[in-house]
Order: sequence, then structure tokens, then C-alpha cells
Amino acid sequence: MTRLRAAIIGGGNIADKNHIPALSQLSEQVELVAVCSRDQTKARALADKHGIEHAFDNTGELYRQCSPDVVVICTPNNLHYPQTMEALEHNCHVFCEKPPAISGQNARDMANLAAAKGRVLAYNFQLRQTSEWTLLTRCQEDGLLGDIYHIKAHFLRRRGIPGWGYFTNKAMQGGGALMDLGVHVLDLALCALGYPTPDQVSGNTYDFIGKAGGKGLMGSWDPQTFEVEDAATAYLSFPNKSSIMLSASFALNTQTDKDRNLEIFGSKGGVKLFPFVLHTEVAGELADIQFPYLEETDIQLKNTAAFLDACRGKPSNVCTAEQGAILQEIVERIYQSAAS
Amino acid sequence: MTRLRAAIIGGGNIADKNHIPALSQLSEQVELVAVCSRDQTKARALADKHGIEHAFDNTGELYRQCSPDVVVICTPNNLHYPQTMEALEHNCHVFCEKPPAISGQNARDMANLAAAKGRVLAYNFQLRQTSEWTLLTRCQEDGLLGDIYHIKAHFLRRRGIPGWGYFTNKAMQGGGALMDLGVHVLDLALCALGYPTPDQVSGNTYDFIGKAGGKGLMGSWDPQTFEVEDAATAYLSFPNKSSIMLSASFALNTQTDKDRNLEIFGSKGGVKLFPFVLHTEVAGELADIQFPYLEETDIQLKNTAAFLDACRGKPSNVCTAEQGAILQEIVERIYQSAAS
Amino acid sequence: MTRLRAAIIGGGNIADKNHIPALSQLSEQVELVAVCSRDQTKARALADKHGIEHAFDNTGELYRQCSPDVVVICTPNNLHYPQTMEALEHNCHVFCEKPPAISGQNARDMANLAAAKGRVLAYNFQLRQTSEWTLLTRCQEDGLLGDIYHIKAHFLRRRGIPGWGYFTNKAMQGGGALMDLGVHVLDLALCALGYPTPDQVSGNTYDFIGKAGGKGLMGSWDPQTFEVEDAATAYLSFPNKSSIMLSASFALNTQTDKDRNLEIFGSKGGVKLFPFVLHTEVAGELADIQFPYLEETDIQLKNTAAFLDACRGKPSNVCTAEQGAILQEIVERIYQSAAS
Amino acid sequence: MTRLRAAIIGGGNIADKNHIPALSQLSEQVELVAVCSRDQTKARALADKHGIEHAFDNTGELYRQCSPDVVVICTPNNLHYPQTMEALEHNCHVFCEKPPAISGQNARDMANLAAAKGRVLAYNFQLRQTSEWTLLTRCQEDGLLGDIYHIKAHFLRRRGIPGWGYFTNKAMQGGGALMDLGVHVLDLALCALGYPTPDQVSGNTYDFIGKAGGKGLMGSWDPQTFEVEDAATAYLSFPNKSSIMLSASFALNTQTDKDRNLEIFGSKGGVKLFPFVLHTEVAGELADIQFPYLEETDIQLKNTAAFLDACRGKPSNVCTAEQGAILQEIVERIYQSAAS
Amino acid sequence: MTRLRAAIIGGGNIADKNHIPALSQLSEQVELVAVCSRDQTKARALADKHGIEHAFDNTGELYRQCSPDVVVICTPNNLHYPQTMEALEHNCHVFCEKPPAISGQNARDMANLAAAKGRVLAYNFQLRQTSEWTLLTRCQEDGLLGDIYHIKAHFLRRRGIPGWGYFTNKAMQGGGALMDLGVHVLDLALCALGYPTPDQVSGNTYDFIGKAGGKGLMGSWDPQTFEVEDAATAYLSFPNKSSIMLSASFALNTQTDKDRNLEIFGSKGGVKLFPFVLHTEVAGELADIQFPYLEETDIQLKNTAAFLDACRGKPSNVCTAEQGAILQEIVERIYQSAAS
Amino acid sequence: MTRLRAAIIGGGNIADKNHIPALSQLSEQVELVAVCSRDQTKARALADKHGIEHAFDNTGELYRQCSPDVVVICTPNNLHYPQTMEALEHNCHVFCEKPPAISGQNARDMANLAAAKGRVLAYNFQLRQTSEWTLLTRCQEDGLLGDIYHIKAHFLRRRGIPGWGYFTNKAMQGGGALMDLGVHVLDLALCALGYPTPDQVSGNTYDFIGKAGGKGLMGSWDPQTFEVEDAATAYLSFPNKSSIMLSASFALNTQTDKDRNLEIFGSKGGVKLFPFVLHTEVAGELADIQFPYLEETDIQLKNTAAFLDACRGKPSNVCTAEQGAILQEIVERIYQSAAS
Repeated sequence: MTRLRAAIIGGGNIADKNHIPALSQLSEQVELVAVCSRDQTKARALADKHGIEHAFDNTGELYRQCSPDVVVICTPNNLHYPQTMEALEHNCHVFCEKPPAISGQNARDMANLAAAKGRVLAYNFQLRQTSEWTLLTRCQEDGLLGDIYHIKAHFLRRRGIPGWGYFTNKAMQGGGALMDLGVHVLDLALCALGYPTPDQVSGNTYDFIGKAGGKGLMGSWDPQTFEVEDAATAYLSFPNKSSIMLSASFALNTQTDKDRNLEIFGSKGGVKLFPFVLHTEVAGELADIQFPYLEETDIQLKNTAAFLDACRGKPSNVCTAEQGAILQEIVERIYQSAAS
Repeated sequence: MTRLRAAIIGGGNIADKNHIPALSQLSEQVELVAVCSRDQTKARALADKHGIEHAFDNTGELYRQCSPDVVVICTPNNLHYPQTMEALEHNCHVFCEKPPAISGQNARDMANLAAAKGRVLAYNFQLRQTSEWTLLTRCQEDGLLGDIYHIKAHFLRRRGIPGWGYFTNKAMQGGGALMDLGVHVLDLALCALGYPTPDQVSGNTYDFIGKAGGKGLMGSWDPQTFEVEDAATAYLSFPNKSSIMLSASFALNTQTDKDRNLEIFGSKGGVKLFPFVLHTEVAGELADIQFPYLEETDIQLKNTAAFLDACRGKPSNVCTAEQGAILQEIVERIYQSAAS
Repeated sequence: MTRLRAAIIGGGNIADKNHIPALSQLSEQVELVAVCSRDQTKARALADKHGIEHAFDNTGELYRQCSPDVVVICTPNNLHYPQTMEALEHNCHVFCEKPPAISGQNARDMANLAAAKGRVLAYNFQLRQTSEWTLLTRCQEDGLLGDIYHIKAHFLRRRGIPGWGYFTNKAMQGGGALMDLGVHVLDLALCALGYPTPDQVSGNTYDFIGKAGGKGLMGSWDPQTFEVEDAATAYLSFPNKSSIMLSASFALNTQTDKDRNLEIFGSKGGVKLFPFVLHTEVAGELADIQFPYLEETDIQLKNTAAFLDACRGKPSNVCTAEQGAILQEIVERIYQSAAS
Repeated sequence: MTRLRAAIIGGGNIADKNHIPALSQLSEQVELVAVCSRDQTKARALADKHGIEHAFDNTGELYRQCSPDVVVICTPNNLHYPQTMEALEHNCHVFCEKPPAISGQNARDMANLAAAKGRVLAYNFQLRQTSEWTLLTRCQEDGLLGDIYHIKAHFLRRRGIPGWGYFTNKAMQGGGALMDLGVHVLDLALCALGYPTPDQVSGNTYDFIGKAGGKGLMGSWDPQTFEVEDAATAYLSFPNKSSIMLSASFALNTQTDKDRNLEIFGSKGGVKLFPFVLHTEVAGELADIQFPYLEETDIQLKNTAAFLDACRGKPSNVCTAEQGAILQEIVERIYQSAAS
Repeated sequence: MTRLRAAIIGGGNIADKNHIPALSQLSEQVELVAVCSRDQTKARALADKHGIEHAFDNTGELYRQCSPDVVVICTPNNLHYPQTMEALEHNCHVFCEKPPAISGQNARDMANLAAAKGRVLAYNFQLRQTSEWTLLTRCQEDGLLGDIYHIKAHFLRRRGIPGWGYFTNKAMQGGGALMDLGVHVLDLALCALGYPTPDQVSGNTYDFIGKAGGKGLMGSWDPQTFEVEDAATAYLSFPNKSSIMLSASFALNTQTDKDRNLEIFGSKGGVKLFPFVLHTEVAGELADIQFPYLEETDIQLKNTAAFLDACRGKPSNVCTAEQGAILQEIVERIYQSAAS
Repeated sequence: MTRLRAAIIGGGNIADKNHIPALSQLSEQVELVAVCSRDQTKARALADKHGIEHAFDNTGELYRQCSPDVVVICTPNNLHYPQTMEALEHNCHVFCEKPPAISGQNARDMANLAAAKGRVLAYNFQLRQTSEWTLLTRCQEDGLLGDIYHIKAHFLRRRGIPGWGYFTNKAMQGGGALMDLGVHVLDLALCALGYPTPDQVSGNTYDFIGKAGGKGLMGSWDPQTFEVEDAATAYLSFPNKSSIMLSASFALNTQTDKDRNLEIFGSKGGVKLFPFVLHTEVAGELADIQFPYLEETDIQLKNTAAFLDACRGKPSNVCTAEQGAILQEIVERIYQSAAS
């Protein structure tokens, strides 16, 4: 098997802790040849730390010198669009961090270019690789849930506004809790329904707690620079009458520190995802089913492998460019509904 | 104090177990003079059981012979409208079971006639009298919650389709889980927000489990005669950007037998209603506050008393004719959204 | 449907509290015409209490005057044999309390005579009617357990030697904890395996605590009159290599007051009976399955109905004469092993 | 004190992690002079790791060059017999891993030769050194249990078939769950009874789950090479009427992942071993007694020390050659009963 | 056995619910001949209810007409002294409610007169008859505690100021929480130490919450008429250096509604009384010992029986006149310390 | 900011693990220039380990060569007095380990000299820096507790007599559990009350368990050298009628291994300190308030910083010389009461 030659764009935590280690473990399939960061010193240090040959401070040089097959993008949300377009133009496969982009149109353009170029564009929604989601998929395939018609999806923090980074910067992130957290559970909910496009989207966003300032599990934050929503809620209704209730928060006066879950309701069975419980009939009686041996897996490793499978034309459950576009358009419609 | 003269219309369980006992305990304020049921034998038996003088099998006779000051209506939902209109025409105060009616227009007409006649029309949403709701109101008044901007309200049964009565009859009930259960928590959620009218209503209804037939905590039901929704979900968005997520079910593949609750999120604090927990800052630190001495109260007795207070012009927190019309219009908009 | 005419022999607690109420509830199928007890006064009182016409102090008179179709025997164990034989000779169907008899040969003779007479002889092992056992049977039928190859069955009391009655009288009862308690769970274990006859039986009995005297949950007992085993353990091995581990105790230095359970191990799944948990694969993963809606049933009523079904030639899961003989022979082999 | 000169035969995990560290900690009493493994490279590496002078790939050379006083045998079960016999012939004390051998006769021969040679032969049943067993012994000595008459002993894994090593190889291991796990709790049960020889042994073995293949807590296993029992059950009856119920499993459809315990029933008290609870009378009342300060101990270190004590003629609770022979004969009788 | 003739003085709840039922159950030993209450109607009604012949509204008439052997006094605390003295003067045995009196001197005079008259005077501290106290006594006798050197005794209510009766009336009750609740646990603590007289008494009383008014588990109370302590704490030091820490409250900002307990610390063992746990060495290891079969007993019945035993000269553990005097003197010293 | 020059006296664990690391983290404010220990080798090793320049074996040389601004004293209790006096004479600020001294007079003299010299003398009661105590202080300031009138303070170990060090040496430590553990919670209790001087002190000390010898969580101890109290109890009464109940133990037959807590009772609210729970009224109802985000802090670091603040004349909550004298005088009065 010829190894793919990969480059990383973005030199932050997510490159260092997630993507580079995953790619390193998959060295039979992929060779990591370059790191690119605005800051050359940072790029060089990261490359040295992981034994990568090249370090660049601009992508032009990267493409010129390295001609990678694959590009992994882990920069702020507002850069996903231009960097993905550039990579596709260079005929690279692209593995882009979530969310796809900061507007629906951008994500749609990205999908179109990938299709035109015949390249893989995929997004890093790693929760698809949890044991729980694998099992959910298996339950669906085995007909244990019947028709799924409603999903409650939420990703809530009580006091979890990051006091560092650019999470509260509207221009760079495109939004707050919905953009950063909500998209994870929205992606799963859409998967369970077959990734349909909703005919109705209604939503609201809030920023009371963010604007008031305070401290929490992720340090204290500055109300002056808090430009995004601290919480968002939405309702999606689909042509087949199925629906999703979505909530996401950086901060909310709720009772748990962090609550990330999906409840999936079907005609034959229902599932609560974390921890996984299945409600369906067994031997003619309503049963509650738990799975004691579900184990934690390295979801980044599995998602990177899924991306590489897609690059080689193998079956893969990685989030596709088309799915990313659908999701990002929904996110935009939520923000529009909230603003109307 | 002159005692009001009251008549009960409807001879079923709710008359026998809820309204007549409550009125009896309030005998200093009210005298129960007549019972009216389609079935004269039933009416007579009920009257005898509770020591009530008159028993009728039609309302015409009732008004002719008794001229009550107050009429309490505990008949199927589709009769609320005609019987309330008739009672108001006879210049009676009316205490009507929930839901107000089977259409928004009916409820609006009822409110208009009550206003025109200068009579009290009120609806029996007794959860307003729980200790938890009283305390919630007090917390709001004391500013512990700040601005309330989102409420999750649900009234879910896992397998609780009544196998008896006319709960699954569309013509008589006007709907299923939303009409029977959802209205209770919707009423509370609207109270917390000041009973505004939403500018957006989006919802869906489902009937997979009802149509499949089965058994549950309330006996087994016949899929042939199951004409209503077994579950409904909705999202309400208000002009001030606050919102309500509502779910109600007779049957749902969820994990608890019965789950009725509201989560109320405000800028300064949040509350989970059952059991009551308040999340707000105390001494500069985020605190979880429980109230060990909240006691169960006789909510029917207190709600009947609140209705009588309204009749006498005293302050009262009973559900008004206007509120009932707003609520019923919302319910109708949910059904319309689901059908569209 | 012609009603069967039934007589009760034995005027103790189990007649008064279990059998007569069950028969009374089944009055469409059976008419209870007589009670017979050694003590005429007791018989008369019991008959009067339950509105039964005849009361006798000897069975001869009973048969002479009443010619019952059905006889229910609730006397001490040592009387089961003679009274059953007499009833069968009078061509009655017999519903006899457990254990079948105090020797294997007796139970075998009883089965033979029933067969010869073409009458139903059945034993009152009511645990077969618990919701748990019904579900176990359903799980077996649905293939969820595969081949069952080992069962642990126990019925243990920590300090539960009855201080009243004749439970510790060897001549009347034929034995102690095994005869009174162990037979219940042994019957279920044998059912699960198809009621085979073991090729090996090994067991032991003990009486240390009984002989020492003491007090417990069922009063204090007299060591002088303690003639039976306070505990018994046994191992049964069957021709197909399946096996049963059995333990029963009136008194044992163990950690729970009362512990009655079966653990059933099969090639595809296993079950712990109380409370019911099923361990088997679902969606390719090992699962623990609980059934939240199992409800307590009136097991005496259901077992009496099952007996009557058998009398009418309908399918029935009541313990048959043949099964009773197999069980009693096993019990005898355990005592023999213990004594050898 | 002259130090004993010791050699280790077997270069696997149990030598590396258990025996060598224990001997190293006891360096005042014993000097570890050689390691012997079929694989010279492995032997040398292990010797170097632990600072041991000699490394051999055959025992002949070992005895020729080193003349050890003590030999520790940690090879597959089928080698215990020939290597122990050889070591005894060289007048060594022998500390052999459990089980003693793969046949009762072998273990008997080993005991006989040890006796003839006047050397210590002991087996490494380390559970005898747990705090719980020390306390059990003390309770027995203090008379808190009275006469022990029944013991339930089990060592069960739900899905714990090792996917590595030779645990499922019949020729090398001599058996499966009974040989590997069951012997541990059987040894303790026999200790509590004074290591008597049973007059009756009845048992069965099973391999449904092993033969089906699958995965579990110890990886996935190959049904093709699964030659041993995945579960065994047995009943032992002793001349004084005491008895043991024994169960062991690598795989069983039960509810806990791993369940290793003994319940010991005596005339005055009973004990559940893990965690230790004593049931006996205190101040005239039945009491449940827990011991909050029992601490985990280094059971290998204590057992090795106990072996060395035995070598020096001091009191020791290590498993003797005679006990090992009794145990192995019982194991063989269980397999014979299962096969008959 | 000649039956003693008894009269009850006081017609309140404690006569009706506690003393008369207990005496009625002991009718083989005692005949209840008269009831006396200030209110003749009440006395007559109570007598009729319980089938007692005489009813009086003054004690003079009672003694004149009935000449009782035994008098049971259940009046407000301030009447204990005059009524006991009068009864003793009439040569009656006296069973007086707790506390003995409202001053130490009164209790001392009562003891002296009882001694002079050779009559039994006993106080109704029924907690002495709980199973827990019986077991504590047995543990002491068996030497399981060694020398007891410190006791923490408390009887705390969080919000339990009675809104009815005369519990907050200083003149009638002599005090508040200490007088009503604290004496119960103080009596037990003194028993455990052998009822010594302390050489040091230090204490304080409080009334913040009582004086503020409020509501609680026993209704709402009037701060205007609240004249007693709502809480008291004290430390008693005895000549042998043992000590008691005592606390009692009607109202306290603590975390449990009602907390009544004793912790008893001895040289060999310690006990927490409710629920009973014993901490001592077993088999050489520190053990926590629980007693699963302790059962609730009818403590009033047993205490009345103990009083009657005392009257007949039998051994009895009822609180004696001398003990009552010691206790009351301690209570008085606590109040003096608090006031100093 | 000029850095203060500091020296440590005492080379034990508390210097190595607590004070030197804290001072090192505060290196912007303070420079650690010397360590002094009786044992020069130990002093040198400690200095080298932490990169400190000077190491002395006598304080004379220390003062001569280094002239420190600040001295931190972590020697046995009996040396606190002479070493503090010497340091003050050299015009140093002194941060002294708890307890202040082994007599009240010593602590008073130390406070007087510090005042005369105008130097800061402070004691290292670090529990003042826990998040719980910070929050308690805030609750007091916010008026949530009202007037505090009673405090239960205890620091109990069940079997925690140190088997090493000089904790049981009377001459060096001045006492046992009270001196070592009790002072911590006594200091907090006094803080909550405003550090008043009690008008009554009553107490007792015990040594039954210590004198008996044994083992526990801190090893085994020698009864021969056990010279101090293993437990102490005391009651303090203050002029304003508030009171403290204090208990401390190295060993006590109680139910928890280690139990350190304060319960603080006020007119408006109460607090249990570990974990922190506040009981007070919220929205007119009695509430239980918990604080989910209280986090563990580095209490030594914060207390050292508080001492340095005091040295620089800033506000500080470190224990002052005057408070230390009041506390030590109380301790002495407890010992005197126990001995009288």
C-alpha cells in the first residue's frame, strides 16, 4: 500500500494532542510530512516534537515544497473555508475540524468543489466513533428501534465558558455554544435520521450569563469580549414528520456541570445514548437493556482511520462534505430564526 | 358572607372524586345544589352519595329549577364549549375542566362572552396550586431567577394510554397526549413567562405505538379505536426571544414510567420543579438549593378556593378565560404545524 | 359450562387463606360444596365463614353425602398419600398440596392410580405462576437461553424455623427445609430442564442450629422437638450432563433473612429469576436485560385455574402426577444420600 | 542464617512478576542464582533484568552447574510433574505453581518422593495469605464458627477465556476453568475443613460458550483451539457429612464479570469471605460483623516466605505436598464424574 | 396474684394513648379503677371510652372514694410535685411522667417522702425499654465496652416547636427543649455511667428561633408566648473523670429534622445507639457490629410492666425516685449555669 | 517590592513538604536563605534539595551569618517558645507552627514580645484557608447566619495514634490529641465567634486506648511511651452566652476513621463545614444549600501568603499572636479542668 503524504495546517492543541498522534499511529497508511502554522517557531517546535520533517508559516510554501496528498485543517472556524478551498484546488483530500464553516454557503461551496475535484472532504465529528454510536447503528440495522421519529439532543455546560482561546470571538468562531458544542450532537441526530434537510427550523440564542461575566469550570471569562451565544435551543422538523429538539450551552442555570446526550425515540424502541440504554420489547415484555462491556475507544484514531478509508475508496462512516453542508445550513437557519 | 349556589355538570370520576369533595369542604362559601348528567340514574346516585338536593339529566331543567350562581363543568372536552356558553348566558360564573375547549376559536369565544357578561370563567389547572409552583412564584418575586428565557416542559408516560374512557376518541377529546397531559405543563410554562402569545409555533405529533396496540400501566388499548396522537413535541418562540420546548406522551420508548417536569432557565437562576431545586448564587458562589419542608397540598381544594376568590373579586391565581384562550390557540397552532 | 363440584380436605390456614378464596373467585367453573377437617367444629366454622354448605369430620361421610368431582387436599404431608388414594378411588380429580408425599414410592403409587383411573392428580407448586416464571418460559421458547446446562436453586432462611405447627415433626412432615422449602425451587429447576430423572444424586442434611434451639423471624423453637433437617444441600446430575445445585434451609449462618432464587445458565443466555434479569447478546453485544413492568400476580388463583384447566382437558402448566412422582423420588434419593 | 540457593524454572510472566520479585525481597533468606527456560535468550534477558547470575535452557545444566537448594517451578501444568520429580531427585526443596499436576497419580507420586527424600514440596496457593483468610483462620481458632459443615466455593468469570497463552490447550493444562481457577477456592475450602478426602464426588463440565467463540474481558478466543471446559460444577461430600459446592468458569451467562468467593457455614457462625463478613451471636443477638481495617497484603511475598519457613522447619501454612495430592485427586474425580 | 388498684391523674393525650392502653394490657396485674381530670366531662368521656368505672374532677374525691394502690400521674410538669406528694401521703405507689419535677429540690423531696413511706415512686423514661437499650446493657454486662468514659447525648429537632399545648409555657413546664426532650437522653447516659452525680455542670440555653416565630413540623408557634429555651447544651463532668456532652433542641439550624442519639465511648468498645452499632475487637481485629434482628417493642407497655414489677418488689429497670432526683438536680444546675 | 529574607528552623517533614514549597512558590516576595536543624547533615541535605544557600546546626550562627527578616519555626512544640522569643529578639517576623506553645503563659509572653518589638508573630492554622472557611466567612458577612451561639467542633481519629515521631511524648509536645488536632478546629470555632475569651472552661482527657497499645491507620504504637491523652473533650462558655463543644482524639471507639468537622449554629442559619452545607431560609422556606463548585486549594500556600501580607501590613486572616495566646490559654484551662 502506498502511503499517503499528509500535512497539518494549524499548530494548536488539537493538532498536537489529537490529529498528529492519530496520524502517527496510522503510519502504515499515512506519512506526516509537514506542519504549517502562522507562527514559524511554533510550527518548528511541533514538527520537532513529533519528528516531522517540514515546518511552514504559510500554506503557499507548503504546497510548493511538499505537494501533500492529504491536508488536515485544525485552525479557527473562520479559516476552514479558505484553507479547504485552497487544499482542494491543490487536489488534496481534506480532513477538516468541525464545524465545517461559519456559514452555510461556505460549506456548500466546499462540498461542491470537492465533488468537482473528485477529492474527499470530510469533517472530524469524532463522536460517531464512540462505542455507543457504533452500537446505536447496529441496533438500527437490527430493526430494534423501528422508525425513529423524535430525537432530543443536548450538549450543556453549566458554567463552561472557556476563559482562554477565541471561543467567545464571533468573527473567528462564527458563534458560541451551538457552533462549538451543539454541532456534535446535531451531527449524530441527523445521522440517526438519514441526514435529511428539515423543512422547518425554529430557534433562539441567549447570552445573559456570558454578558454578566463570572467564573466556572473552564476559568473566568471577560464579559467585555463575550460576543457569542452562551446558550441556544432549536427545533427541527423534517418532511417525514420526524423532529429534533436541540440545546447547547456554555453556561446555563441547570443542575449538572456537563450533560451531553441524545434520546432517540423510535416506533419499536428507544435509546438513551450515554450511558447506553435500550428500551424495547424482549420476549413480549417491555425491557430495559444495558450493555456492561461497552468500552471507551480512541475516537480520534478511529475517525482519522475512517477518513483515510474514504480517501482509499473504502466504506467509511466519516462525516462527508455533503453532510457537512447540510449541517452547516441548518446551523445558519437556527441563527437566522433566532435573529428574526 | 352569602353562599354561592353551585351546580355540577358531568357525573364522572372527576366530579365525584375532585370537584364535589372540594366544594363540600368549602361549604361556608358555596352550597352545592345540583348535579347534572346525561344519565338520570347516575346523576341521582351521585347527588345522594354527596347529599345534594337536585339531580338532572339535562341542563335546561337545571337552569330552570335551580338558577345557580356558579357552574362547574366536568364533561368530555367537546362539551366544554357549548355548556360554558350556555352557563354564561345564564349569567353564571363557570369553573371548567381543562383543556378549555377543542379549538382555539371556541376558547376565544368563551372568553369574549365571559367578558361581555362580566362573569368569571376559569379553568381547572390545579398544578398551579402545588407547593412547588407557589415556591417558584415566590422565587420569581424575590428576583432569584432574573429574566426567564427558556423552559423545558414535559409530561411523558412510557406506556400510559388509558384503556378505558374516551381518551383516544378524537371527536370527543380533540386530541391525545398534548390535549390531556401537555396542557398542564404548558399552562405552567406560560405562567412563568407572563402568558405571552408566541410568534412562532412549530410542532409534530406521532401515533406509532398507539396504532400498534399493546398494554401498559393503564391497561391495554385497542389500536382500532386509537384516533389521537400518542406523543407530541413543540417549540414555542416568543417576541422577547424566550422559548418553550414542550413534549407530551401517552406512550414513548423512554426510560421512566411517568416523567412530568419543568426546567426553568433564567439569567440569575434556574429551577427544576419536581422535586424543587433552585440553582443560583449564594454568598458569591453557585449553589444548589433544596427545600426539605415542601409539603404536598390538596391542589384541587386550593384551586376551587382560588376560583371562588375570583368570583368574589379577590386576588386569585386561577387560570383565567383569557389565559385559557391563549393556551388553546397555541395548542391549535401546534396541531396545525404538525399537520402541515 | 357445567360447574365442577369440589370439596376441601384440611381445615387449616392454607385452606382458609389460599385454596378457598381461589376456588371462590373461580365460581363460574367450580362450586365448593364441602369442607372436611378432623375437628368438626373447625370444619363447620370454616364452612360458615365462606358460605359452604357441608362440613364433615371424616372423609367417608364426605364422599357418601357429596360425591365431589374434585378434591383439594391441604393436610399435613403424611396424609397426602392416603387421602389422595381415597379420592382417586372415588374417581375424583385431586389437587394436592406440596410436597406430593413423604416417600417416593407413595408419590409413584399416586401417579399410577391417577393414570389408571384417568383422573387428574396435580400438585400445588404455585411459583410456576409467578410473572418471572412465565417470562422465563417465554425466553426459553424464544430461544434466548439456548441449551440450559446448569441451575443453582436455593430457598434459604437465616433464622426461620417455624415455632408453631408441625414443621419440625419428622413423622408428619417427612423432613424439614428440603421437604417444605427446597421442593419449590427444585420443581422450577426441573421444569426448566424438561423434568428429567437424574442419574446421580448426592446430598447432605444438617441440624446444628435446630438442635441448639433459639429464636428467629418465625418465633422461637424447641430443640427438644426438632426432629428434621434445618438445612440440606444436594447436587443432581442428569443423563445429558446438565446439573442442579440445590440448597434449602430453615436456619443457616448466612447473610440474608430469606433468599429464594434460581440462576439458570444456558448456552446462549442466563437468567437470575428474582428479580428477573436476563443475560444474553443483543445487537452483537453482551447485554443485561431487566423488565420494569413485571407485576405480582395472584399465584394461587392462577394455579387453581391451571388445575381446573387440566381437569377440563385444556393445556395447563400445573404440576402433574408424573412430575410429582419424579420430584418426590429425587427428594428421597437426597435423604438417602445424606444418610448413607 | 545461611541463605538458601534458589533456581527458577520457567521464564514466563509468573516468574517475572510474582516469584522473582518475592524472592528478591527475601534476599536475607534466599539467593536466586539461576533462571531456566527452554528459550536461552528469554532466560538470559530475565536473569539480566533481575540481576541473576546464571541462565540456562535445560535443567540438566542447571543442576550440574548450580546445585540449588531450592527450585521454584513456574512452567505449564504438564511440566510440573517431571520437573518436580527431577528437582526432588536432586534433593532440592520444591515450590511449585498451582495446580500440582495434571493427574491425581502424578501429584501422589510427587508427594511420595518428597517424603522419601525428606524434602519440602509445596504449592503456590497464595489466597491462603490474604488478610481475609488469616482472619477466617483466627475466627475458627476463637470458636466463632463452631463446626463447619457446608461451604459454597466459586471462582466465576462471565467472559474471561484468555485469548493468549495455552489456557485452552488440554494437553498442556490438563483442563480449563476448574484446573486454573477452581483449584484456588477448592484449596481454601479444604483448608477450612481440615483437608479431608471426600467419600463422594459428583461433577460436570461444560464448553458451550468456549466452543462458540467470542470476545470478553481477556480478548477474543478461537473456538477451534478451545479444548477444555469453560465451566465446571461439583459437589463433594465428606465422611463427617460436611460438604462443598464448587463452581468455576472461564465463561458463564451470569451477572458479574468476576466473582470469586467462599461462603462458610458453621454451627455457631458463618463467613462470607470477600469482603469479609462474619455472622454470629454477640451479646445474645445475631450479629453481622464487618472489619473496616482489613488491608490488602502482598500475598505472593507472604506465600514465598511461608515456603521458606517450611524449608527451615518452621511452622508454615503453605500448601503441603500431601494437601496438593489430595486436591489433585479430587480434581481428577470431578473430571471422571463429568465424563462418566 | 392480687391485682393492684390503679388511678390515672390527668386526662390528656398521654393518658389516653400511652398509660391507659398499657395498663389495660396488664389487666392480670392491675385494675384501672378511676380517671381524674380537672374537667369532669373529659374525665367521664375518657373513663367511658376505656371502660373505667370512676371519673373525678379532683384528687380529694378520688382518694376518698377509691383508695387506689397505685397512682399514675400524667399532668403538666408543675403538677408532678404536689400530686406525687399527695399520692404518697395516701400510701400509693406512684408512676409519674417525666420530667420528675420543675426543680431539683421538689424531686429530692419526692424521693425522700417515697423512701419514708416505703412506697415505689418511679418515672416514665420509656427509652430504657427500647431493644437498643436492652442490648446496650447486655453489651456492658458482657464486658464488650470496658470502662465507659464519655457519652455524647442529643435530642434535636430542627423545627419542632409544638404549636399546641403548653410546651412553651415556662410556669407550667419549667423549661423547654431540655426539660421535654433532653431529659430522655440524659437519663440513658446517666444509666450507662451508673447514675453518678457530676462534680461539674456547665451549660447554656438559647431562644433565638423560638422568639422569632415560625412554622415547622409541629405547626407554627407564637413568638409572644414563647417563654422557654429552644435549645440547650451542657457538659457534665463526673468524679471518676467520665463526662457527658448533652444537647437538646426544639429548633436549631441543623441538617436533620429529628436526631435523637447517644454515642457511648468505652475503653474496649463503643456504641452508637440508633441504629445500634457496636465497635469493638473481634478475633483480634477492630470490628463494626450490626444487629439485623433488633425489633421495635412496645416501650410504654414494657415500662409500665417494669413499674409494676417494682411495686411487687421484683427486679426492675424503671427509673427510681432517687435517680429522678439526681437527674432533676442536674437539670437545675444546667439552668443555673446558663443563667449565671 | 523588596524581597524578605527568610530562614527555616526545623528540618523535618513539615519544613520539607509544606513550608519550603510554599515559600518557593512565593519567591517574588520572599527569598529563602537558610535552613537550621540540630543535625547539620540533615540541614545541608534539605538546603541542597531545595537550592537554599545556608545550612546551620544552631540558631546563633544563623542569626550571625544571615540576619533574616523572617523566621519560620517548624520544630517540636516545646521549642516554639524559646525559638520564637529568640527570633523576635533578633527583630524578625515569625511564622510559627501550631500549637503556639506548650503553656498559656509562654504564648502570652510571645505575644507581648512581638507587640513590644513591633514584629509580626503568626501561627500556621491553615484550615482558615480552605474554600469552606472562606465561604463560611462570606456567609457571616452576608448575614446569612445571624448571631452564632453554639458550635460543635471535633477532630476525631478512630485509631490514629502516630507510631513514629514524638507525638506521644509529653515533654516535647505538651499534650496529645487536643494539642495536635483539637487546636485546629478550636481555632476555627473561635474565629467564628470573634475570638472571645471564655468565662467557663470544663474538660476531660482520657488515655485508655493509648495505654493499652495497638495498631491503627498510622502504624502500631508503644503503650510504654504513651504519655499524652488519646482523647479530650471540653465545653467552653462565653460571656455572651455562646458556647463551644470540642472533642479531639487520636483513638476512640467511634465509627469513622477520621472525622473532622464543625457545626455552626446561628440565629438565622447554620452550617456544617465539611462538606459545606448551609441551612437557612430562601424565598420564605427553610432551605438546604450546597455549593457544587467549591474547590480544594493549596492551603499552606495561601496561609504563607497571608503571613507575608501581614508582614507587609496588608489585611490578612492569618492567626495573630494575640489569638494564639487566647487559644493556648484555653487549651491550658482544659488540661487544668481535666486534672482537677
